[in-house]
Amino acid sequence: MERHFDQELSELKEVLLRMAGLAEHGVAQSLKALVQRDNSLAKKVDTDDVALDRLEIEIDNRCIKLLALRQPTATDLRFIAMAMKISSELERIGDQAVNIAHRAEELSKEPLLKPLVDIPRMAEHAQGMIHDSLDAFVYQKPDLARAVIRRDQQVDLLNSQLHRELTSFMIEDPHTITRCLNLMSVAHNLERIADHATNIAEDIVYLYEARDIRHQNESAG
Amino acid sequence: MERHFDQELSELKEVLLRMAGLAEHGVAQSLKALVQRDNSLAKKVDTDDVALDRLEIEIDNRCIKLLALRQPTATDLRFIAMAMKISSELERIGDQAVNIAHRAEELSKEPLLKPLVDIPRMAEHAQGMIHDSLDAFVYQKPDLARAVIRRDQQVDLLNSQLHRELTSFMIEDPHTITRCLNLMSVAHNLERIADHATNIAEDIVYLYEARDIRHQNESAG
Repeated sequence: MERHFDQELSELKEVLLRMAGLAEHGVAQSLKALVQRDNSLAKKVDTDDVALDRLEIEIDNRCIKLLALRQPTATDLRFIAMAMKISSELERIGDQAVNIAHRAEELSKEPLLKPLVDIPRMAEHAQGMIHDSLDAFVYQKPDLARAVIRRDQQVDLLNSQLHRELTSFMIEDPHTITRCLNLMSVAHNLERIADHATNIAEDIVYLYEARDIRHQNESAG
Repeated sequence: MERHFDQELSELKEVLLRMAGLAEHGVAQSLKALVQRDNSLAKKVDTDDVALDRLEIEIDNRCIKLLALRQPTATDLRFIAMAMKISSELERIGDQAVNIAHRAEELSKEPLLKPLVDIPRMAEHAQGMIHDSLDAFVYQKPDLARAVIRRDQQVDLLNSQLHRELTSFMIEDPHTITRCLNLMSVAHNLERIADHATNIAEDIVYLYEARDIRHQNESAG
């Protein structure tokens, strides 16, 4: 029984890492579609997203089954509960990548406004944050999770900076408005991806640093 | 023991409904701050949001404790697992209301661009969706949850419509750009609130209509 449970837990970790890998890949591909003005790649991001939707359901089902059949306690219980929250965040990251891919298709219809510098930088942060938050989860590293939370500020800063810059462009030349709005939208999606990674990181700090739940409200129940 | 568990479950429902009530109230107040150009109310939305952050943690702790001490099965187990997902969604709704309140403060610095019609309509939908999705959860009404999911399209439609209208305003008169961007942001926040309510509704359909998990993968474990 114990050995099986350990195996099921490590399978759950594997599926989560696979899901995180796909989410990260989706973000990378949506950016590539944007930078290379590649519409067929943009469409692929959309179709690939189905895998993330399925994995969310698979992870939920695995977690509910583990909770029902194994009745885990303490850390294992918290791990499984957090896995369900984390799978939702990863699924949302996939949705954001799809939004970026749609914006990339729109942007490819008009000439390039200016070389893309801040957006790829934001994307690099966002991908790193997804990666690190899942590493922090699976390898029990709350310090790494805290670093992800700090990194979110840099993404917010890049987003505000770009927002101001694009607003000036729009005011100076109204012909750029549609492109600026699409770029703002991409930046905003990246900022949200970073937020999702931050949510995961916050869950992990709660998971690994909160007091053992068995010592909470012991008078209740 | 049974009686206690039932009581704990009904307490959990109460806390969730309280949290949903606060989330709905936050959205209503942020809109009021916007429409009435009331900056002190906008600031209040920001400070009130702390209560939602606390309730998310409280609900997580209650759920983990119930899972650990009661080892529930079947519907109760799924209910508790979904409660944790739903508390996250409600907390995010609170964050969106705070964003709207910030935009309201910015918008109050400039004259009104045009009477607000679509935004209050979107807000009405979003609030109704939060309300109905929680009713569907607590009173076990998957049909009501499905109605929430359908209603999301109307909000998306209003958002796209407003986006187009505001883009035309910006092109015609660049002096309106800052205001249009702030209004777009508010509409986008409302659309996200509706998305969160839709996520809750989708969780509820999964909760009440999925097959009993004890009959899934029976060969495993």
